[in-house]
Amino acid sequence: MRPKNRKADQIRPIKITRKYTKYAEGSVLIELGNTKVLCNATIEERVPKFLKGQSQGWITAEYGMLPRATNLRNIREAIKGGQTGRSIEIQRLIARSLRATVDLKQLGEYTIILDCDVIQADGGTRTAAISGAHVALTDALNMISVKEKFKKNPIKSMVAAISVGIVNGNTICDLEYSEDSIAETDMNIVMMDNGKIIEIQGTAESKPFSHEELISLLYLAKNGLQIIFSAQKQSLKT
Amino acid sequence: MRPKNRKADQIRPIKITRKYTKYAEGSVLIELGNTKVLCNATIEERVPKFLKGQSQGWITAEYGMLPRATNLRNIREAIKGGQTGRSIEIQRLIARSLRATVDLKQLGEYTIILDCDVIQADGGTRTAAISGAHVALTDALNMISVKEKFKKNPIKSMVAAISVGIVNGNTICDLEYSEDSIAETDMNIVMMDNGKIIEIQGTAESKPFSHEELISLLYLAKNGLQIIFSAQKQSLKT
Amino acid sequence: MRPKNRKADQIRPIKITRKYTKYAEGSVLIELGNTKVLCNATIEERVPKFLKGQSQGWITAEYGMLPRATNLRNIREAIKGGQTGRSIEIQRLIARSLRATVDLKQLGEYTIILDCDVIQADGGTRTAAISGAHVALTDALNMISVKEKFKKNPIKSMVAAISVGIVNGNTICDLEYSEDSIAETDMNIVMMDNGKIIEIQGTAESKPFSHEELISLLYLAKNGLQIIFSAQKQSLKT
Amino acid sequence: MRPKNRKADQIRPIKITRKYTKYAEGSVLIELGNTKVLCNATIEERVPKFLKGQSQGWITAEYGMLPRATNLRNIREAIKGGQTGRSIEIQRLIARSLRATVDLKQLGEYTIILDCDVIQADGGTRTAAISGAHVALTDALNMISVKEKFKKNPIKSMVAAISVGIVNGNTICDLEYSEDSIAETDMNIVMMDNGKIIEIQGTAESKPFSHEELISLLYLAKNGLQIIFSAQKQSLKT
Amino acid sequence: MRPKNRKADQIRPIKITRKYTKYAEGSVLIELGNTKVLCNATIEERVPKFLKGQSQGWITAEYGMLPRATNLRNIREAIKGGQTGRSIEIQRLIARSLRATVDLKQLGEYTIILDCDVIQADGGTRTAAISGAHVALTDALNMISVKEKFKKNPIKSMVAAISVGIVNGNTICDLEYSEDSIAETDMNIVMMDNGKIIEIQGTAESKPFSHEELISLLYLAKNGLQIIFSAQKQSLKT
Amino acid sequence: MRPKNRKADQIRPIKITRKYTKYAEGSVLIELGNTKVLCNATIEERVPKFLKGQSQGWITAEYGMLPRATNLRNIREAIKGGQTGRSIEIQRLIARSLRATVDLKQLGEYTIILDCDVIQADGGTRTAAISGAHVALTDALNMISVKEKFKKNPIKSMVAAISVGIVNGNTICDLEYSEDSIAETDMNIVMMDNGKIIEIQGTAESKPFSHEELISLLYLAKNGLQIIFSAQKQSLKT
Repeated sequence: MRPKNRKADQIRPIKITRKYTKYAEGSVLIELGNTKVLCNATIEERVPKFLKGQSQGWITAEYGMLPRATNLRNIREAIKGGQTGRSIEIQRLIARSLRATVDLKQLGEYTIILDCDVIQADGGTRTAAISGAHVALTDALNMISVKEKFKKNPIKSMVAAISVGIVNGNTICDLEYSEDSIAETDMNIVMMDNGKIIEIQGTAESKPFSHEELISLLYLAKNGLQIIFSAQKQSLKT
Repeated sequence: MRPKNRKADQIRPIKITRKYTKYAEGSVLIELGNTKVLCNATIEERVPKFLKGQSQGWITAEYGMLPRATNLRNIREAIKGGQTGRSIEIQRLIARSLRATVDLKQLGEYTIILDCDVIQADGGTRTAAISGAHVALTDALNMISVKEKFKKNPIKSMVAAISVGIVNGNTICDLEYSEDSIAETDMNIVMMDNGKIIEIQGTAESKPFSHEELISLLYLAKNGLQIIFSAQKQSLKT
Repeated sequence: MRPKNRKADQIRPIKITRKYTKYAEGSVLIELGNTKVLCNATIEERVPKFLKGQSQGWITAEYGMLPRATNLRNIREAIKGGQTGRSIEIQRLIARSLRATVDLKQLGEYTIILDCDVIQADGGTRTAAISGAHVALTDALNMISVKEKFKKNPIKSMVAAISVGIVNGNTICDLEYSEDSIAETDMNIVMMDNGKIIEIQGTAESKPFSHEELISLLYLAKNGLQIIFSAQKQSLKT
Repeated sequence: MRPKNRKADQIRPIKITRKYTKYAEGSVLIELGNTKVLCNATIEERVPKFLKGQSQGWITAEYGMLPRATNLRNIREAIKGGQTGRSIEIQRLIARSLRATVDLKQLGEYTIILDCDVIQADGGTRTAAISGAHVALTDALNMISVKEKFKKNPIKSMVAAISVGIVNGNTICDLEYSEDSIAETDMNIVMMDNGKIIEIQGTAESKPFSHEELISLLYLAKNGLQIIFSAQKQSLKT
Repeated sequence: MRPKNRKADQIRPIKITRKYTKYAEGSVLIELGNTKVLCNATIEERVPKFLKGQSQGWITAEYGMLPRATNLRNIREAIKGGQTGRSIEIQRLIARSLRATVDLKQLGEYTIILDCDVIQADGGTRTAAISGAHVALTDALNMISVKEKFKKNPIKSMVAAISVGIVNGNTICDLEYSEDSIAETDMNIVMMDNGKIIEIQGTAESKPFSHEELISLLYLAKNGLQIIFSAQKQSLKT
Repeated sequence: MRPKNRKADQIRPIKITRKYTKYAEGSVLIELGNTKVLCNATIEERVPKFLKGQSQGWITAEYGMLPRATNLRNIREAIKGGQTGRSIEIQRLIARSLRATVDLKQLGEYTIILDCDVIQADGGTRTAAISGAHVALTDALNMISVKEKFKKNPIKSMVAAISVGIVNGNTICDLEYSEDSIAETDMNIVMMDNGKIIEIQGTAESKPFSHEELISLLYLAKNGLQIIFSAQKQSLKT
């Protein structure tokens, strides 16, 4: 039995708010149950050194968590003197996922930075960040397109992400923190809306998983992601 | 003429939302015009080393700004490898201001940490943080009082803060960013609700100020703070 | 056509040398083609703080690369002032993979540190590190077992890892650097010798992959890992 | 009763020694009782990035304290890995105070760095640093003026600073350490010799202060600063 | 009596392996008894800032030790956040020693970096590093000379180093760790093959030494270094 | 011809001022020509971790240079984020030199820290620091001895240091900066007053030196050190 009687394949209520803050070129608050992540997109008219003169753009991401986003307060990374290994891992994942869906040549010499800051954390912050960042990125690219008159939209596909896992032997979709902390297997899947996979990261925290379980988790993810793609599309219409 | 036709002594619309996030013992979003600061209070059952065995508590604060809280993106402090001088200065001010209004002996061996994170910045973030943190601190102390059955409330007084300044030769109250960036004098005043001063920090950015101007700024501040004390009281009632 | 006419499912020549250095409790040089990783296991009679008094052990890992392990020299991490995000990611993966195969209660209050240092890098250093570290860990645990007379061997299973990927549309096993750098998909798989999966990390660098391709990569990995498990067993016999 | 029978409005003996070291363009040892601060001015023919091409100069400051300047030894900041929040706050104050009295346009593309290093500390180091740095800066600017033949002296006004405070309910001037450590209110005031205020920083360490007390502290400061301005003028004559 | 019946003037078995790794322009493993140091030379077509436009080259060095090179594991410098004072001292010594034997004008605008990484440590790692680095440097310079057609070989002389010391009142050559850790005096000598001294560093750990002892140590060093120069020459022939 | 017509074996005027600052247990300003180093000794009633429970003491040292001690301003180490390799090397040398002359068992569980801060630098700062620190250490030990009633003075011997070198082919004593910067060989020698050597560090900056030159430098050092031992003795008498 899951908290609040959720079914194994049921994701938490999702809410996507665009233009959440005033200054960013794209600003999205994504809420997935009690998980709330603010995704701000910034456009900069420059590219990193290693891309200079190649007339293509770049997408990067930074991830942070407010100290009291969680039940126990975390030490502020700025005071610790640097990001944790976990933050670095997550922001690399977010950036890779978004880059996979953008035609960087089409983008031209711009860098888009996605700042994903967790206001409140109840599991699934990295996947929510990817799903929210896609919407913020879309808004930022629309802003550039006005100026650049792109022949072709640089976004090749939608992208969203979800966590799935095995808890007490059951495969379930969209784990909240109380489930995540006791999961035997924890898996994050990033997909395009055509069902193709961009990234899969599965970890057996305490018990290895079989091929069959992997297949089953993939189907749960694909299913749950339909709801998220709908929410993204709905939000981008308004 | 001030933006939006504000009068010299008029403060921006203020909104204080309690229980803004779910986990912190006190969680307040304070909005002053376009400035938005999230103030989370955390209770920890420990005291810093230098207070061990003195049966008294401690109040501390940390200040941060989301990278895209402002019009131009700031480098994330966690990536820079530490807090800026500005952040350190501000969090020391917030902590001193709150400590001045709490009876630390009465509090007992608890540490309260106030995390003040700026979601959106349009001038006056440090003073908004103090005013918001007071409400979050009050909520956290009420939570402790249930357990500790304080004989006397450890909060000795309300505290709030406001910025005043001289722009184009005129003394004005509650500067927004466009005013702050051209001010001749910029002053932050932290006061108790009985009108006594806890902290005064006045800087002549480009033109020194006279005794008379200082007196005039103090009156503007005292006046403006009445509105903020009212908003705090109103919010704590509900 | 792969370099040196390798077949799609063929792994590079593997060589595992035990007791490579003199002082470590387990010391293994693993060579996979031109990739050479030194895996040293250290036994310490202590546990990390968060495990104090729980009568169980811990396994951790650190990963490094000599500056000139690669064709272009890398800046020394000690001079940069800290590990790169990549190193941190990899050592977390190595440690998780090894912990999944050890009964930490059985181990008792010991910490085993696996230092995986890359002497020469030609792709697949993280997976080679896992496969080599398993042998070094086994040697270290055998050394403890002499003293502790374990009722049951703390190692629950063998573990090895391999990279697979999609290059020019073909699924291949054990990518060397020249393949890895142009792969459409890059996947690392950590498995037990019973075929169960401990970790899967797949990234579509440039082109997303389908369910069918994922299944195909899993079979290639399972197949290739048989050779590595054999090499580990052979080496542990001598 | 103050130590050594000082009266409430009496400042400690002041001594200003110019050309204290041999290499700096301005080098001043200022002694205020037992407080001794070495202020060295360095001229550099460059401006910070944000001022490039604006044909104006810049004044900056750095503050440090020798580890054994005080009764209890402080950890060396170079070993701690960075400056403390206190040092950063103080050097920002020194720099702001000096910049307020210099016509940066007149100065031209030079940066003057004021290194204020405390040899011995007995309260009031930051205010002594400002008063001493003004003299060192004047010497450095005179050195530039020889070369540049300024039409107008870039120094618009003299500047000095003093601490005032409330101890045991009495307002006093120029606190030494034994007074500062028990003060109810501690205030630093930076003034021009025409009586205009450049900076005011007042903190109620334990008891808030009233408007009347603030006015009284301002008069004490103005009065005490006359002695310091005299000492500066006297020293610059020789 | 020395371990393994070594005589006072006898150095440990030495082995120099060139082309130890595949990518570096010079790659040498030097073994002196149980001490094993990998010396990799990297050629970079640039010079440090302070040499720009002076048409001369530069030689620099970096020293590291694998965490488990020694009997007790050392904390990894990359995790500690920087190199230890000992590492910095050693790499400065290595670089100075090599620079003294190269005509930097002749070299032209190249920088050669010598990475000296200790795989296993049993005393004398810094002197072994110098002796090994000389061979790696020679290989790297030969590689450049093919391209640059040097009129004159930039290497002016061979260089090697050895440790000598006083243990239990006896002067001995090439101390291993068990001797080094109880030595009264520990001395490192860097020499050219013509007997001239490049660097001498002698420390009385527990008992000062006399002029006579210093002379005696110098002769032991000169003698022992003959074997090392032979090994270098032999290795460079093959 | 040396500056100011100094003879090859002549040291600069030396002046040692005790009780230079007020708070340190030993406080010495040593001046050697234009080189001025402040050496403060601090007594702490604790020992480092590795000496706990061994009923012996410890001597340590820290070295720093004020940013404008030299002709060109150096970046402040506290701002750079750590000490330079040079500073670390020097403070290790100072501490080793002093420890070699103190009976640490006799001292008991105290740590003496020598802070050597260079106020003005004209060559020879490290050797001046050693000579000055010896006097400050003696004062601090005398202060402890009052309390501990040492049976035997923990200081076993006097210690002083001097630089010698080869400039334009001539061996000279006590190099000032203009000589040091062009020296072919630069050597620092630390000696006891009985002529025994504690440390010798000789570096051929541009031209290797012979045995004969080494002997000659040793005699110059021994000679020059007589003046310094006299100055130390004289100063300790008063």
